[in-house]
Order: sequence, then C-alpha cells, then structure tokens
Amino acid sequence: MRKLLIIFILFAQFSYTQDDIVIKDIFNTSLTKSKAYSWLDYLSNQIGGRLSGSLEAERAVEWGKSELEKLNFDKVWLQPVMVPRWVRGPKEFALIETEPGITFNVPIAALGGSVATPSVGLKAEVIEVFSLKELEELGKEKIDGKIVFFNRPMEPEFIQTFTAYGRAVDQRALGALEASKYGAIGIIVRSMNLRLDDHPHTGGLTYGDLPESKKIPAAAISTNGAEKLSSLLKIKPKLKFLFRQQCKQMSDVMSYNVIAEKKGTTFPDEIILVAGHLDSWDTGDGSHDDGAGIVHSMDLINIFDNINYKPKRTIRVVLYMNEENGKRGSIKYKEISDREKLNHIFAIESDAGGFLPLGFSFTTDNEKFLKILEWKKFFAPYFINVFIKGGSGADIENLRTDSNVLAGLRPNSQRYFDYHHTEIDTFDAINKRELELGSGAIASLVYLFDKYGIE
Amino acid sequence: MRKLLIIFILFAQFSYTQDDIVIKDIFNTSLTKSKAYSWLDYLSNQIGGRLSGSLEAERAVEWGKSELEKLNFDKVWLQPVMVPRWVRGPKEFALIETEPGITFNVPIAALGGSVATPSVGLKAEVIEVFSLKELEELGKEKIDGKIVFFNRPMEPEFIQTFTAYGRAVDQRALGALEASKYGAIGIIVRSMNLRLDDHPHTGGLTYGDLPESKKIPAAAISTNGAEKLSSLLKIKPKLKFLFRQQCKQMSDVMSYNVIAEKKGTTFPDEIILVAGHLDSWDTGDGSHDDGAGIVHSMDLINIFDNINYKPKRTIRVVLYMNEENGKRGSIKYKEISDREKLNHIFAIESDAGGFLPLGFSFTTDNEKFLKILEWKKFFAPYFINVFIKGGSGADIENLRTDSNVLAGLRPNSQRYFDYHHTEIDTFDAINKRELELGSGAIASLVYLFDKYGIE
Repeated sequence: MRKLLIIFILFAQFSYTQDDIVIKDIFNTSLTKSKAYSWLDYLSNQIGGRLSGSLEAERAVEWGKSELEKLNFDKVWLQPVMVPRWVRGPKEFALIETEPGITFNVPIAALGGSVATPSVGLKAEVIEVFSLKELEELGKEKIDGKIVFFNRPMEPEFIQTFTAYGRAVDQRALGALEASKYGAIGIIVRSMNLRLDDHPHTGGLTYGDLPESKKIPAAAISTNGAEKLSSLLKIKPKLKFLFRQQCKQMSDVMSYNVIAEKKGTTFPDEIILVAGHLDSWDTGDGSHDDGAGIVHSMDLINIFDNINYKPKRTIRVVLYMNEENGKRGSIKYKEISDREKLNHIFAIESDAGGFLPLGFSFTTDNEKFLKILEWKKFFAPYFINVFIKGGSGADIENLRTDSNVLAGLRPNSQRYFDYHHTEIDTFDAINKRELELGSGAIASLVYLFDKYGIE
Repeated sequence: MRKLLIIFILFAQFSYTQDDIVIKDIFNTSLTKSKAYSWLDYLSNQIGGRLSGSLEAERAVEWGKSELEKLNFDKVWLQPVMVPRWVRGPKEFALIETEPGITFNVPIAALGGSVATPSVGLKAEVIEVFSLKELEELGKEKIDGKIVFFNRPMEPEFIQTFTAYGRAVDQRALGALEASKYGAIGIIVRSMNLRLDDHPHTGGLTYGDLPESKKIPAAAISTNGAEKLSSLLKIKPKLKFLFRQQCKQMSDVMSYNVIAEKKGTTFPDEIILVAGHLDSWDTGDGSHDDGAGIVHSMDLINIFDNINYKPKRTIRVVLYMNEENGKRGSIKYKEISDREKLNHIFAIESDAGGFLPLGFSFTTDNEKFLKILEWKKFFAPYFINVFIKGGSGADIENLRTDSNVLAGLRPNSQRYFDYHHTEIDTFDAINKRELELGSGAIASLVYLFDKYGIE
C-alpha cells in the first residue's frame, strides 16, 4: 500500500505536463502556504520604517539574510554598497498665520534630502503656483524672499494612478531646485495623494548642482492642509507660513543588497531575477512600499519548494537597498553584474504595493512581447488580465539588454497613493489574500520564463 | 466668438460616434463628477444600518426617493411591499466555560430570523461538526440536548471568495433547521469570513416548516472565537457554551421599493433596469452590502446627464427593499412587472461591494453572450476584463426571460468577506475611486445595451 502511494505521488508529480495545472497549483499554494503575510508582519511591525543608513535598515538587512538562509537557496550573501544617510530629526511643525496671533496648524513632512529650516523655523509670505513653468513666468521679483507653495493636484481621471503621480511629482522632485533659482527661501508641496486627508507624503527631492548656500528647505503638506492654505490665500494674500524641520544629510554609510541564488538545473548561466526594495521611508513602516515587494520576492522559492518545482534556470532574489533616495543598491548590483558578465534573461520587480494583482507590464521587443501574450490565458482564471508594454521597476530597469525581458507587477493602484510615503503605510493596510495573490502571480510568471526561456 | 464656441460644443457632442470615446467620457465623469461617494457618506453615516422594517429602513426609503427626485428622471415612486421585521434586541453575549468559574468571552451575533435564548441564556455541552451531513452520521444520541457548533471554514483556495461563501453558507442558512431535527437546543456557526478576526458575521437562516417549539436559537461566532472554542474542545470535551440573545420576529410591516424611471426616446417599451438593495443588516452601516449598489445605481443618470447622453430605451433604477431576509421587494417587483407585462431587455445588479470593478457576469444565451464579448475591448483601458457567464444578483434574477440579458457587477472580492454582515461594514472601508469606477463600469455597460439593444 505504501509503495503504491509513493508510485502514485511520483506519478502525480510527473503528470504535471500542463502549465495551467502547475499554475493552479502555484495559486493554491500562494493562498494556503504563502509566508508573505507573516514575513511582512515581522518586517513592518518588528522592524518598521527603514530608511537607508538607519538602524532599522541594518536590522532589515540582517533579517532578510537570515530568512532567505532558511529557504532552499544555494547561496545567500550581502553585497556592500555605500548609501546616503538622511535623518528627519524631531517631528516637523507648521502653521499658517493669517494675522498676528491668528494661526492654523497644518500637517507637514520634510521631503527626503531636504535641508533644515533655521531652528526657530522659517516664516515668510507664500506664493501659490501650479507648475515649475509658472515660476519662470512670475520671475524673481514675485518670488524672491517667499515660500513657494506648489499646489497642482494629482489628476483623478487617470485610471493608472501612477500616471497621475508621474505628472505631478516634478513639483516635489524639482520644486526646491527651481524655486531657489528665483530667490525663494523655502517650498511647500501639496502631497502626492488623490484624496483629501491629513497625511503629508514625504519623498525624495534633488538640489541638482546647487551650492550648499542655495539649498532651501522643502516640505510636503497634507492635501487638506493644501486646500486650507489655498483658500486662506484667497482671503488673506499676505498671510505668512511658518515651518520648522531639523532634518540633516549625514555622511554616507555602508549598507547592503541582500541576494539569494539557486542554481538552475539545466541552464545555470541564464539568470531570472525577482526583486523588491528593502529600504522604505521612515514615516510609516513601509508595508506597501516596498515590504510587499520584498515578501513577494522571498515567497518565490517557498512556493516552488511547496509544489516541488526545480527551476531549470538560475533564480536570484534581490532585496535592493536605497531605492527611495539614491538607487545606490541598483547601481551597485548592475556594476557588479556587468563586471561578472551575468546574463539576466528575465527580471521582475514588485514595487507598486501589495494590492490585488491585475497583471504585468513588460519592457522588451515586440516579438518577445507577442510571445508573452500567449501566456495571458494562463492568468485569466485568477482575474489577472493586464499584460501591457511599459516600465518594469526603478531598481531593475538598468538590467535591460537588447535581448532580455523586464517586467513589473501591476497591482490595483487605486488605493496606493492613499498610503504612499506616509505614516499610514502600515501593516493594517495590507490584505492577506491580495498580498498572497501577488506572490502567486510572480511565481507563475517566473515558472513560465524558467520553463520556456526567452528564445 | 461665442457663436463659434457653441458650434464647437455642438460639434463636439455630435462627433461622439465612437463608443470608446463615449466610454472614456463616462469613466472620466465617474472619477470627477460622481455623486456616489457623498451619497454613500449620507446613507452610511447619517442613516446607518437599515434592516427591513426598521426606522432606518424607513428613513432610507425617504432619502432614496428624495435624492432620485433631484435627478433627471420622468417619475419616481414607491412600490409598497410587506416585509418581515426582525429585531436583534440588546447586544448578544456568549462565553465558554471549561470548568465552573473558568470562562472565556467570545464575540457572537444572533443570526437574522433566529429566536431568542431564554432570558438567562442557554448553556449546554457543545458538539463540533463540519457539515450538515455529519449531523446525520452522529444521530440524535450524540446531539440531543447539546449546542451544535458548525465549524467548517471558508476555503481559501477559491479565487472568487463568493464561491467559498456558497460552499460554506449552508451551515448558517440550514444549520438550525437540521440540528433541531436531532434534538439540538441551539447552534453556533463559524462566521463566513476567510480571515481570523473578532467580528461575528450575521446573516439569514431558515427554520423551514419547523413548528415554533422546535425553533432553536442560532448565532454566528467570530473566526477567532471559533478557533478558540475548537481548540478548547480538544482539551476539555465536556466544556459548556453559554449564550444569550433577545432577538425577536415581529409582525410584518409595510415598506417600499424605490423606483425611478426615465422614458426612452426611441424604444420606450424596452426597459433597462439598474439595481441594488436599500436594506442592510443592522450590525454595521451596510456601506459595501449594499450601500455601494444603491449609489452605483443612482449614479447612472447623474453620469448620463453630465455627458449629455439621452437614453433611447427606458431606464429604471430600482432600490430594492428586503434582499437580506426575505427578498420580498424582489418578489413584489416581479409580480407587478408581470401584471403590467413589462419588457426588461437588460437588468444589472450591483450587490458584491464597492471594491475595484473587475468585470461582469452575465445570465443569457450563448449567442447573446458572444455578442456581448465583442464589447469587452471597450473596458480593457479601465482594467475591466472579466466577462463571464454566471449569476446576476439575488433581486433581479427572477426577471430572466428566454430572450433577455441579466448581469451582475463583479468587483474585487478578496476583501468582501472581511466586512460582510459585520459591524465593520462601514463607510471607512470604502475607497472613493474604486466606488466611482463601479459607477463608470455600470454606466458604460448600460450605454452599450441602450445604444445597441439585444437583438
């Protein structure tokens, strides 16, 4: 009887000839044996926000390595990389003063990389603008000595909220650099958020080549705060805005990408890379950005082991460091990959949240994309139907070659900017099943690339 | 100049020849001018849970009529219907007693329609079962005088959580009826919930033809409570369960379906019906079940008016009463529709929550379904890709004829049973954009059926 059972089990495994059966098995496994949710619980609740160079980032690296070592990889290692270290300091403070003694508190968060205000705060008149271009039109005369308030909202009519983000984020990324050129002494940016609420959204900025003396402090204001400031400006154009932040750029410190590798049984020189980024902003605990991508990536080998699938090609899981404010981990990985002449035939990144997976976007040539479209049918039973050409992810996009395929997981983006870079990007905003379906989606796509390659 | 502008506007309207342009306009409008979110705010937060026969249900009827009258309908009226009136009474109470004096509180909610326990509560030994069939196997000997604890969980591996619900809900619907036949004195049912938490999920039951004396009290226990009870039973099989609930079935009372109609310009005798249900369970405020469906339906004419679309066929919006515990509104509507020989060529119901719309399920013949599939391409830009054959909705399914088409909106179902029939089905669990995309999806499909009919 026992022998018969073993034969049956062997038969059952070898009878996995149809891809749809394997993929069903992958999704079943993801909904019943995924480790994504419990991993993310630990990363979010026991480690928390983990900005590059912080103690939390150090702990996240240790944790990532230690968890990957428990899985069935051949090798897990740390790849050293120098990262910027920016510290927020004490909680920021801001108010609108419509006349002496009449004030309105508003929630702000320093933008990542910003300089501090004077320790007593920075107080000045405000000029509201809706684009970088408007600065040029207003000119130095109208801007000099003022705080520039960038208030162009994200546009609600875009179905992909990342598109709306891309069309508004120049204010946050370049606002300080550009406003400084016209003599502004600080900037306030409407949060990158489609809804009205009280959470300021931090995020990176650049000062370009500005000398130290020309760097002006920059903060995000919540969307409700922005609405209030805008409406008060209409009544009291001479009102003053005061904000205080004690953030600071420290010296670069050593950190690490965490890498795990399982050699392929048949094509060990063809690498399939699965990635997310381990660092996060410091305001929340980075559950969606990008704890979800980290645990999606880690879950791959857990799922493959559960269904007893042995990859033919080499699988690499990379937990990138420093996506948020420097991409140093990505640059370092690429540099070493080039030096070692590694051949990444396929790479996929999950960095758009832990929401319901709707599909993937692919960076590749048309011929390969048409081949990939033939796999779409395998995903329809899981309501995953979006196979489009488009970007992959900020960390992996530098791995593009003429012949390979890059992809990005595309989850439901409608709620993403409610949480992004705020104190409410926390574990309670994660739905277990949606997170697990993301693991299943990635594992299924990797299975197909592993089985069929890209030729 | 003004004249030119008017000509341009007219031209812009008449140039709407391509359906994809109209549908883009519908979705843009839904994301910028929908009233769904503010309506739902009022219905949920100012009226609240509205079980049939309650004062809240009465207020919801008045509100629905008054809001529909503000829209561009030809006629709004109330359709009287007698509905059951069941009242929950004071908050229920339950505990597990492993030995005298050692007790564990657990959260329960009386099932809708259940009889009360004695006023001091009902206390007995517990027998845990996993199916109705198991009752038969155990027989009267093992069940008599006990509380039956139905503990079969919803199965996580189903992608459509409604499938898992359908496979588990017999315990809630029929458990009391069946257990009573074997002498049980009460039942406790594991909540219809895929996750582990502390919220009991109420919902309807039937006692079938049981005489009054044989009706036994029935309550849902939270999934965490069910896990605790199950694990304690393994250590202390003789433990006792005590629960107290003072719910009561009162006499039927008069209530109403709320109906609004806009006559078609070209085919006034062909009716297109859009519906949700106005009643909800009493524990939460019924935002997802089915406040969302109500405001989706009401939003249709708001959207059409905004894009200046005049329906060729007659549009009816029906806010059904009493879906949750009797379907009397549905039965009444059908009865009068038959009497008046109305021709509903298409009906769509939204009763699966206000989450991201993924598609529709259709009840119709294969020939019509194939024609409908040709419209799928119009929805792809909005990541709405699920066009499947299947059920429509509990209220409209009786409108099926040999020649018409019924449909149900199919939103993302992964989170639905976190909230369903609990005190956390509240407005804060609604995402504005996801709700609005539901309005857009329904309006777009109605536009196509209105323009092309079903022949």
